[in-house]
Parts: sequence; C-alpha cells; structure tokens
Amino acid sequence: MTGSNITRGVLAAALTPLTPDLAPDLPSMISHFQWLLDRGCDGLGVLGTTGEANSFSVAERLAIIDALGESGLPKDQLMIGTGTCAEPDTLELTHAALAAGIRSVLMLPPFYYKGITDQGLAAAFARVIDRAGDGDLRVILYHFPKMTGVPITQGAIELLRRDYPDIVVGLKDSSGDLGNMTSLLEAFPGFGVYAGTERYLLPVLQAGGPGCISATANVTSLMASDVFRAHEESDNDAGDLQERLTAVRQVFDGLPLVAALKEAMTTITGRRGWQAIRPPLTVLASAQKRELQEALHAEGFNLKAAA
Amino acid sequence: MTGSNITRGVLAAALTPLTPDLAPDLPSMISHFQWLLDRGCDGLGVLGTTGEANSFSVAERLAIIDALGESGLPKDQLMIGTGTCAEPDTLELTHAALAAGIRSVLMLPPFYYKGITDQGLAAAFARVIDRAGDGDLRVILYHFPKMTGVPITQGAIELLRRDYPDIVVGLKDSSGDLGNMTSLLEAFPGFGVYAGTERYLLPVLQAGGPGCISATANVTSLMASDVFRAHEESDNDAGDLQERLTAVRQVFDGLPLVAALKEAMTTITGRRGWQAIRPPLTVLASAQKRELQEALHAEGFNLKAAA
Repeated sequence: MTGSNITRGVLAAALTPLTPDLAPDLPSMISHFQWLLDRGCDGLGVLGTTGEANSFSVAERLAIIDALGESGLPKDQLMIGTGTCAEPDTLELTHAALAAGIRSVLMLPPFYYKGITDQGLAAAFARVIDRAGDGDLRVILYHFPKMTGVPITQGAIELLRRDYPDIVVGLKDSSGDLGNMTSLLEAFPGFGVYAGTERYLLPVLQAGGPGCISATANVTSLMASDVFRAHEESDNDAGDLQERLTAVRQVFDGLPLVAALKEAMTTITGRRGWQAIRPPLTVLASAQKRELQEALHAEGFNLKAAA
Repeated sequence: MTGSNITRGVLAAALTPLTPDLAPDLPSMISHFQWLLDRGCDGLGVLGTTGEANSFSVAERLAIIDALGESGLPKDQLMIGTGTCAEPDTLELTHAALAAGIRSVLMLPPFYYKGITDQGLAAAFARVIDRAGDGDLRVILYHFPKMTGVPITQGAIELLRRDYPDIVVGLKDSSGDLGNMTSLLEAFPGFGVYAGTERYLLPVLQAGGPGCISATANVTSLMASDVFRAHEESDNDAGDLQERLTAVRQVFDGLPLVAALKEAMTTITGRRGWQAIRPPLTVLASAQKRELQEALHAEGFNLKAAA
C-alpha cells in the first residue's frame, strides 16, 4: 500500500503567530505547534492556508522551515506546505523541507492560471518531483478549489499516481464535498485522502481515509482526537462524538476562518499577540468576536477552559 | 490630474520567450520587446499574465527586471508586473523595478485568499507602497477577477486614491466588462483605467481612459495603433478600424491565450523556440493550431506577412 507512511489521525492546519510588525514569530510558532501536539494532534500541517503561508515571502517560508528543522518537534509528525504558483519556488521550499528532515509536503497546485488541462497540472507537479530527485519525498496534493480556482482533478491524480505511486501518496480535500473525498478513496486504492475539515473526520475514516487536516483543529483538537480514538477502537460513541465536534466546528462557518481562529487563540491563551494577522486578512470586527464567543458558549465549548 | 505621467496608447502585455529548458530567454525577450515597440506599441506591460510572471520564481523575475534595466529599452515605456500573494515579495520586485529605473508597476492584488474586505485589500497595497517609500512610484492596479478571484473593488480604490493620489494612478481592467471600465473612469476622475483588451480600446479612449494593455497586442499592435492614432486625430475611420481590430481579436476567444499567442509568434517569426511554455500552461493541440490559423486567415490577417 503506497499510501503508507503518512500520518493517520487528526492534523491541525496550524496557525502562524506573528510579531507586532507582522513577521512570523518563530518562538511562539514552535510553542503553539508543541501545544497542539500535546492536545491530541497526531500531526501538523504547517504553512497551509490557515498558516497564512501565501502571505509570506519565499524567504520567510524558508526561515520557518529552518526553524522547524532546528526545533525539537518530531519531524515525522510535520507536513509542510510548499506549493506556490511558480515551480522553482515550490522546488526550493520542497528542498528546504527535505533538508530539514521533513519528508511530507502539502502541495498546492500552481494556482494563478485557471482552466488548465490535466496534463498541464500533472506536468507542473511532475517538474517539482523530478527536480527534487528524492525518493523519500511524500507529496500530499492540496485540493481547495474555492480558494485556488484550480481543482486537483481525477485525471491529474491518475497521471501522477501512474508516474509517482510511491511519492504522490495523498490529498487534502478542502472542497467541503464529502462525495468527492469518498469517490477519490474509491477510485485510488491506497491513496491517502484527508478530509479538509474535522466535520468529515469519521466518514472519511470509515471510507478508509487516514484522517483530517483541519484549520479549526487548532481549537478543537481534543474533541477531534476523541473521535479518531473512538473510531480506532471501534467504540460505539464515535458517532455521538463526531456530532458534538461537528456542532462546534459549525460555529466557525460564515466567519473569516483565520481571523476567527486567531481570536479564539487570543481567548484561550490570553495573549493579545494572537491578534496579529497579515493583510489582506483582517482581524474580526467586534460584532463577529461577540458572535463567535456566544455561539461557542451555546455549544458548551468554553475557550478559557480549553487552555 | 494625478493620472498624468502614465503611458497613453497601446501597451502589449508582452510574452516572455523561454529557453528549451523553460527558463526565461533574456536576449530573445529583449528582442521581442524591441520588436513590439517598433510595431506600434506605445509601451509594454512586462511580467503580467501573458508574460507567465506567476510561473516564474521571485529570483527569475528579479533577473528579468535587471535585464530590462541593463537593456537599451526606453524605461518610461515599460510597466512591470510586481504583484504577488506575499507583500514582501511584491515589495522586493517593486524595489527592483525602481532600481532599474522603471517607476510604473502593474500590481496584482494578493490573490490567494478570497472574500477579503476592501480594507484588507487596500492595506495590502498600502503596506507595499509605504515600505517602498518612493514618491516616484506609479502603481497601476491589476483587476482580473476571473484569474485572481480577488476583484479590485471601488471601495478599495477609494481608500487608495484617498491616501496615495499621486502613486495609485491607474488600473488595468481585465474583467472584460466595458461597463466596469467606464464607471471607474466616471467614479475616479484623473484615474487612468486601461482596457485589458484592445477590443475596448476606442470606447475606453472615448470615455477618457489612457488606452489598453492587451495580451493579443503582441500580434495585433499595428492594427491597435491605427485605432489609437485615428482617435487622437479625431479621424472618422476610428470606428471602422476598431471593428476590424475586434474581429481579429475575437479569433483568440476560447483558445488558451498565452499558448495561442506563442503559436502565432512561432508562425510570425518562424522561430520554433516560441513553443516553449511553462507548466501548468501547455502548447496548443494540433486541432487548436489549425483552428487559429484558419480563423485568422478568414479575417484577412496573415501571420507570415506580419513579421
């Protein structure tokens, strides 16, 4: 099974704390990542959408990857976002991840040009993989059509699975479409399709997927972990636990997600520094902050007690 | 009038020739740019969508900007695309353009995150402008919602025109919506709104705009130039000339634009090297190549005679 060696369970798409002048705050970042691993996360997706990766320069991302390499964090639980619009930048970031001892990368498609062909999309990934030239590399494709406008199509996956069965081992499906997740799992046996939201953690596990990589798991990781553990132990509670998790997850619907999570982390930790967010993203408006707090409270989710 | 100092007339969104291994071919690029300026172009938009800018790494773009600075090309006729998803990368490219003696930059919005606020969008541009710290800078905003998913809204323009009236002097409107172009010209007097296609060259000039910045002007610049000249001289032929230009422009509708233009340049110059295109873009399929040639022929546009 070629999908092996990828992390199973709950992965948080980790937030990146920033300094007051909006640079990545590397020490706070490492602390946050350790905190997540201590709170039920089986792994971390670093430098993804939630981590504001695309708002960071290539140089800033390289510095983040270096910091991860030098940290005591367990490398085999880390997955680094390296996909950019430009193949040489993606290659440089991928090389850096490998050099830092991190072999799993979450790769966005080149997302500027729209309406591209399956062949063009697969060729763009292939060029990075060929030039990386490292059989240890594990690529998780990042399917987020609402954000990229460039879906990872079944046609492109087929070409990549044919040519790189041991390297292109999975996909994060942030389409929000459970049907797409289960049909990919069916179409490509052994291919590790992660739910992009913990809302679909249980159904994706039941369909044979490895778990979820989720933004809101920065806050809900303990609850999500309970669902995963219950599934692994064939516990009858799994469905109920998923239902409660889904209810909390839904509180974030309709709010700007990164800002809402940074707001939640501000409450959890009492650290005002969590409010720093890089444009074009903006902090929540006051009314949104109240809405978030009240809705979480209504679901019985106490942010202050979550610390 | 703050929109002064920007180039009026026909600007080609210039193609970037590539080497066989898909790196920017700098000498061929400079030759192509000179050829365009010799064929009726009043200016060039370099490193835009047509120039495959987003497929190039930051380092490759810096090398292109340096090559422009060292070339004999007239700096005041060049406009450089510097907008990326990440403010520090955009800043570095903008600094490089200024250092190369090129003050006009065409700036994409940070285009990864969707559904951002006017305030967030304006703040992202403002951060670059503030940190560039150069009153000579002239920013042309790049509105291409179909490609970016991030429209340059009237609300964001209003904030930027308020704070940077002498710097944020124009916009390239690639929405394909003439109504948007004319309403921006009406809403912001003195703001230089370029049509993103030569199809709307005459109506935009008539509405007080400076001209067009167009992909297909790589091939149609002489015809587009005739329209501009006729308008400037209040020639009665302007409408007829625009109609003929529009008919040729429409041949490219429905074809992948960069590939179709590289195919046209292959025929015009007889140089096979023009076929090189970087993934995720792909060359035209054989049937598309035939379709393009036949449709241009039907419009009386002879590519071989266009050399």
